[in-house]
Amino acid sequence: MDTSSMTQIFSEFLGTMILILLGDGVCAAVNLKKSKAEASGWIVIAFGWAMAVTMAVYISGFMGPAHLNPAVTIAMAMAGNFEWGLVVPFIIAQVLGAVVGAFLVWLAYLPHWNQTEDQGAVLGTFATGPAIRNYPANMITEIIGTFVLVLGLLSFSQNTITDGLTPLIVGALILAIGLSLGGPTGYAINPARDFGPRLAHQLLPISTKGTSDWAYSWVPIVGPVIGAVIAAGVYMLMV
Amino acid sequence: MDTSSMTQIFSEFLGTMILILLGDGVCAAVNLKKSKAEASGWIVIAFGWAMAVTMAVYISGFMGPAHLNPAVTIAMAMAGNFEWGLVVPFIIAQVLGAVVGAFLVWLAYLPHWNQTEDQGAVLGTFATGPAIRNYPANMITEIIGTFVLVLGLLSFSQNTITDGLTPLIVGALILAIGLSLGGPTGYAINPARDFGPRLAHQLLPISTKGTSDWAYSWVPIVGPVIGAVIAAGVYMLMV
Amino acid sequence: MDTSSMTQIFSEFLGTMILILLGDGVCAAVNLKKSKAEASGWIVIAFGWAMAVTMAVYISGFMGPAHLNPAVTIAMAMAGNFEWGLVVPFIIAQVLGAVVGAFLVWLAYLPHWNQTEDQGAVLGTFATGPAIRNYPANMITEIIGTFVLVLGLLSFSQNTITDGLTPLIVGALILAIGLSLGGPTGYAINPARDFGPRLAHQLLPISTKGTSDWAYSWVPIVGPVIGAVIAAGVYMLMV
Amino acid sequence: MDTSSMTQIFSEFLGTMILILLGDGVCAAVNLKKSKAEASGWIVIAFGWAMAVTMAVYISGFMGPAHLNPAVTIAMAMAGNFEWGLVVPFIIAQVLGAVVGAFLVWLAYLPHWNQTEDQGAVLGTFATGPAIRNYPANMITEIIGTFVLVLGLLSFSQNTITDGLTPLIVGALILAIGLSLGGPTGYAINPARDFGPRLAHQLLPISTKGTSDWAYSWVPIVGPVIGAVIAAGVYMLMV
Repeated sequence: MDTSSMTQIFSEFLGTMILILLGDGVCAAVNLKKSKAEASGWIVIAFGWAMAVTMAVYISGFMGPAHLNPAVTIAMAMAGNFEWGLVVPFIIAQVLGAVVGAFLVWLAYLPHWNQTEDQGAVLGTFATGPAIRNYPANMITEIIGTFVLVLGLLSFSQNTITDGLTPLIVGALILAIGLSLGGPTGYAINPARDFGPRLAHQLLPISTKGTSDWAYSWVPIVGPVIGAVIAAGVYMLMV
Repeated sequence: MDTSSMTQIFSEFLGTMILILLGDGVCAAVNLKKSKAEASGWIVIAFGWAMAVTMAVYISGFMGPAHLNPAVTIAMAMAGNFEWGLVVPFIIAQVLGAVVGAFLVWLAYLPHWNQTEDQGAVLGTFATGPAIRNYPANMITEIIGTFVLVLGLLSFSQNTITDGLTPLIVGALILAIGLSLGGPTGYAINPARDFGPRLAHQLLPISTKGTSDWAYSWVPIVGPVIGAVIAAGVYMLMV
Repeated sequence: MDTSSMTQIFSEFLGTMILILLGDGVCAAVNLKKSKAEASGWIVIAFGWAMAVTMAVYISGFMGPAHLNPAVTIAMAMAGNFEWGLVVPFIIAQVLGAVVGAFLVWLAYLPHWNQTEDQGAVLGTFATGPAIRNYPANMITEIIGTFVLVLGLLSFSQNTITDGLTPLIVGALILAIGLSLGGPTGYAINPARDFGPRLAHQLLPISTKGTSDWAYSWVPIVGPVIGAVIAAGVYMLMV
Repeated sequence: MDTSSMTQIFSEFLGTMILILLGDGVCAAVNLKKSKAEASGWIVIAFGWAMAVTMAVYISGFMGPAHLNPAVTIAMAMAGNFEWGLVVPFIIAQVLGAVVGAFLVWLAYLPHWNQTEDQGAVLGTFATGPAIRNYPANMITEIIGTFVLVLGLLSFSQNTITDGLTPLIVGALILAIGLSLGGPTGYAINPARDFGPRLAHQLLPISTKGTSDWAYSWVPIVGPVIGAVIAAGVYMLMV
């Protein structure tokens, strides 16, 4: 493997770590007891995740393509914008980055875990979960959300965009999806974003935690991949 | 009809579909019971619609002019920026896109409809309605809102704007109108945005739905067209 | 008076009209009973005024300098960026635009005035007022707020800014001032923004209105002019 | 010391003054009784500080590098982007600017202090404090927050960014950190931001104030410096 590939893989690790540090960070800020941002609502969640993605793209994007999402990596390979040989290393780097990012959230909010007795609030800081549990319906929601994500990302490459603006536009796309399609499942739209922190939740010594809800964990993996594949297909028909 | 016109008509369909998926999506997020964004307020609605328009313009704008609104199409034709021959096909594509977008919202929030007993909340997820029913007054509000929309859009073409920034500025315009002029009627400012989803509400099998309130439906069609025509007239006097 | 001057004066009228339509519009949206945005809070007010200024600058800024504020006009003349001969015509156009903008807000929210029995809420939709009435302190607040406004505007001209971004940055400046310095007096920071709509409040036939509070009206005129003059002086020392 | 260095030192003073005027200003807006923005929540705090930094960078950034933060100054010297000889004068200018900025907040909110009986709310308007007092944990939070800040700032220099956009991106970074990592300690991430206003709190004649909590004051000095040094080290490994 050449140096450029190593740098790109490292950038996926670093970018996804920042993404989850800031993304799960805003969930901690809103969910955990005694946080200064406790119960500050959906607008905080939606802007927090949007800015998390924007900053992750700035910090990692000068070293690689900044997918930060296995579903995006697969869709980009399908659309011919990315070589298949790097797909598996990218996904591994993304998941590892997500685990480390979740570990940093645990550290940043260290005294708050013991104060938070609601096991759902603790899990919800790490992983997504359904507002109403219904696996087929939950998967449809994740498919639609990731379809918009990947169609948006692919369309940005068809627009001429001035230098340095793209990460802000990607953040605006995340804001759009969070505000509009996040209500039923908390918009994973990214298998690494859900699986990595769920693993961290399983492993971390949090006295107030409950189950890691592995029964749901396949939905935010399968749904986003299907949605991304559909978007890549529609895009290839379009251009 | 040539290929370019077909592409443009398709882009109006796709863009308006995305617009309504994300726009009615944020109404679902705030209105429907058990949504994670339930009752998160006007700031969420206003940013959600703003980002819906921004993303619809990015996704469709590289294939066509991204009107996504019959009132805008008519005003652009009046102002000499668009050929009259494509006005009717554009409007049909916009309405069809809006219907499909509303159908996708129904899918994305599938388990939430049965939980939402308020028929007004269900209808309000699809179509606009007056805070205080008064048809002449409601029409004046829609005229003023669409006047600002179209005057803004026309003025952007007089500013030199760096590549890729325009869809964000159009979103800022929608944010402005939503925050400031959305209070009385929910700012349709677009006949397709109201009529398409109202038709979807009529057709979809939602057990908790009530009337589709067709008595009001002409206001968000006639008002926006009048407002757009006035704006195009003022603009032609200005430049 | 030449054509260019006439165009510029008209652009001040139009821009200030849009500014007040959207700015007082967001006050109506939050203050008036049964508005869909009723009681949606300070974040809505602050973003509403920010976007009002941004859109007023886009709509009027291709025809003139888009001061939209007598204090800015005076400061720009002091700083040598604007000819003194146009100061009085500009101020007259700004005040007239503000009156017409307030009239349009009255129209847009027509059925809501009778529902709003709180006379303070009605007046607060048009003009600013002190949270704690203390004329010297209220004037200091307006001086500081306008100092930041004018120092910011003057500093933008020292930065190289890509085409079309400036109105968004001006909106960000208004957002900053509103969020941070708006608490005590509602941030008039613009004599026309307060005087024009106060006059409209005096004149309009609103059955639920009370006094127009002319006793306070000199504060948002004198304070902003002093703050703008200080900022222009500091700026001239700096460059 | 040459003229250019004097200008740069002055720009740090002015920029940090604006930063604290707007940043502590939004804390006053939300914390102080009878403020029009009282209790308007974390979204107002987070956007207020973000816009405070953005505007401070526009206003001071054309005269100097706009660090506005001793931890950033030290990290930039470490990363080879800034000369060590100016580090101490910069830090002195930053602290002085922060004290004067806090004094201006006191002036802008003059009648509100006596109305605010909660001593914690008064102190919290000036300086940061822990949600749960635990010095090692609080320091970890500040280390992580400042690590993201400095890694972000350094990465921006590796991206090509169009003219005039950078201060908005820096504001987006502050928004990200505030929303996601501000919950436990109120995100000082800047020794001058905390020490300067804490000194002002000690000195100002506020009848309702209590202790200035100097026991905590070392955390937002030591933590940010450590976080900035780690980020500079990681960055040097990366590029």
